[in-house]
Amino acid sequence: MSSITLTAFRWVPPMVQGIVRDVRVRWAVEEAGLAYQTRLIGPAEQKSEEYQRLQPFGQVPAYDEDGLVLFESGAIVMHIAERVESLMPQEPTARARARVWMFAALNSIEQHVQRLTELDLFSACEDWAALRRPAVLEAAQRRLAMLAHSLEGKEFLEERFTAADLLMTTVLRIPHHMDLVARFPVLEAYRLRCEARPAFQRALADHMAPFATKPGA
Amino acid sequence: MSSITLTAFRWVPPMVQGIVRDVRVRWAVEEAGLAYQTRLIGPAEQKSEEYQRLQPFGQVPAYDEDGLVLFESGAIVMHIAERVESLMPQEPTARARARVWMFAALNSIEQHVQRLTELDLFSACEDWAALRRPAVLEAAQRRLAMLAHSLEGKEFLEERFTAADLLMTTVLRIPHHMDLVARFPVLEAYRLRCEARPAFQRALADHMAPFATKPGA
Repeated sequence: MSSITLTAFRWVPPMVQGIVRDVRVRWAVEEAGLAYQTRLIGPAEQKSEEYQRLQPFGQVPAYDEDGLVLFESGAIVMHIAERVESLMPQEPTARARARVWMFAALNSIEQHVQRLTELDLFSACEDWAALRRPAVLEAAQRRLAMLAHSLEGKEFLEERFTAADLLMTTVLRIPHHMDLVARFPVLEAYRLRCEARPAFQRALADHMAPFATKPGA
Repeated sequence: MSSITLTAFRWVPPMVQGIVRDVRVRWAVEEAGLAYQTRLIGPAEQKSEEYQRLQPFGQVPAYDEDGLVLFESGAIVMHIAERVESLMPQEPTARARARVWMFAALNSIEQHVQRLTELDLFSACEDWAALRRPAVLEAAQRRLAMLAHSLEGKEFLEERFTAADLLMTTVLRIPHHMDLVARFPVLEAYRLRCEARPAFQRALADHMAPFATKPGA
């Protein structure tokens, strides 16, 4: 029985609660039926030399499994997924296709929705933001339209739910401050279908639980 | 003997020659000692329904290996890397760590240098760009400083060259219009060390060769 410790934030502002990247890893661990414990950190621990040794970019999550230290949510999800058929098919073609969509979620979709979300959440009052937003919105919409086209008539990105759908769902959750995804009924139905999985519900609840107490409160 | 066909652009403007994502895949294929052929496309083929079925986001490269169609340069490089020890260790811990750095290259570094490069190459004259550039530059520098810290005293990201170094090198090549990477001697030496590999030199030459002829010329 392996011992898994996942590092997550003790508290984040309400506008990013539910979209921090530890949700992905919690979800994968839940789908895989593994037990894990969390190490909750705050800004001081995040900036510490000790944490930088685990996670060179000072980000969350970091993952420790019996001394094997991993970071990058995509890499951690892939590591967990490969041990369970339910997240990653053993059959080589299906596996290669699932991995294509894992990279697509993080590289062809996430950066666009992330850019728009960051702009809206953190820079809305800056002069450049008003000038820049239309192009950033348009780029995000264009990518989502292509994704919707790929999902037309399908339940999941490939034949059945895999770790790629897990990652893609967490990416579609990022612009939760607006109706960007909801404007594509195919994507909204897909997101809700994936979020309905009990493993996601447990992961989200466990991610949110610490935020009920504001630090210093 | 598998038959590999890689899709790349017939021509791109000089400012992006050498940094299109097919370089990564050509490099991996060369390191693996595999043979491949290229299918060069232009804007019309890129927008075609037929190409969208292969590559839902209309990007380059797409990869066909005996009918297995893959896209996303990261996924293709991983697919190739796993069949050769020289690009990806078989040993599970070393393999997991190499994959961590593959994701880090594409998710924690690339998006920052890409954002700065896009701004400089495509939006330098826009009003928002002057206002926005200092923060984008600062974010890219901050990430590169963290990467340099990780590479301090090391030849490669982990014990030896892997597909992670291959991807990271192609990421560090993106901001080639300025001295962003050169300002970090550790990173510049690392980039040159990886680029000196004969497989990279062949990949780059093959990527560049078609651009000698401008379409319609």
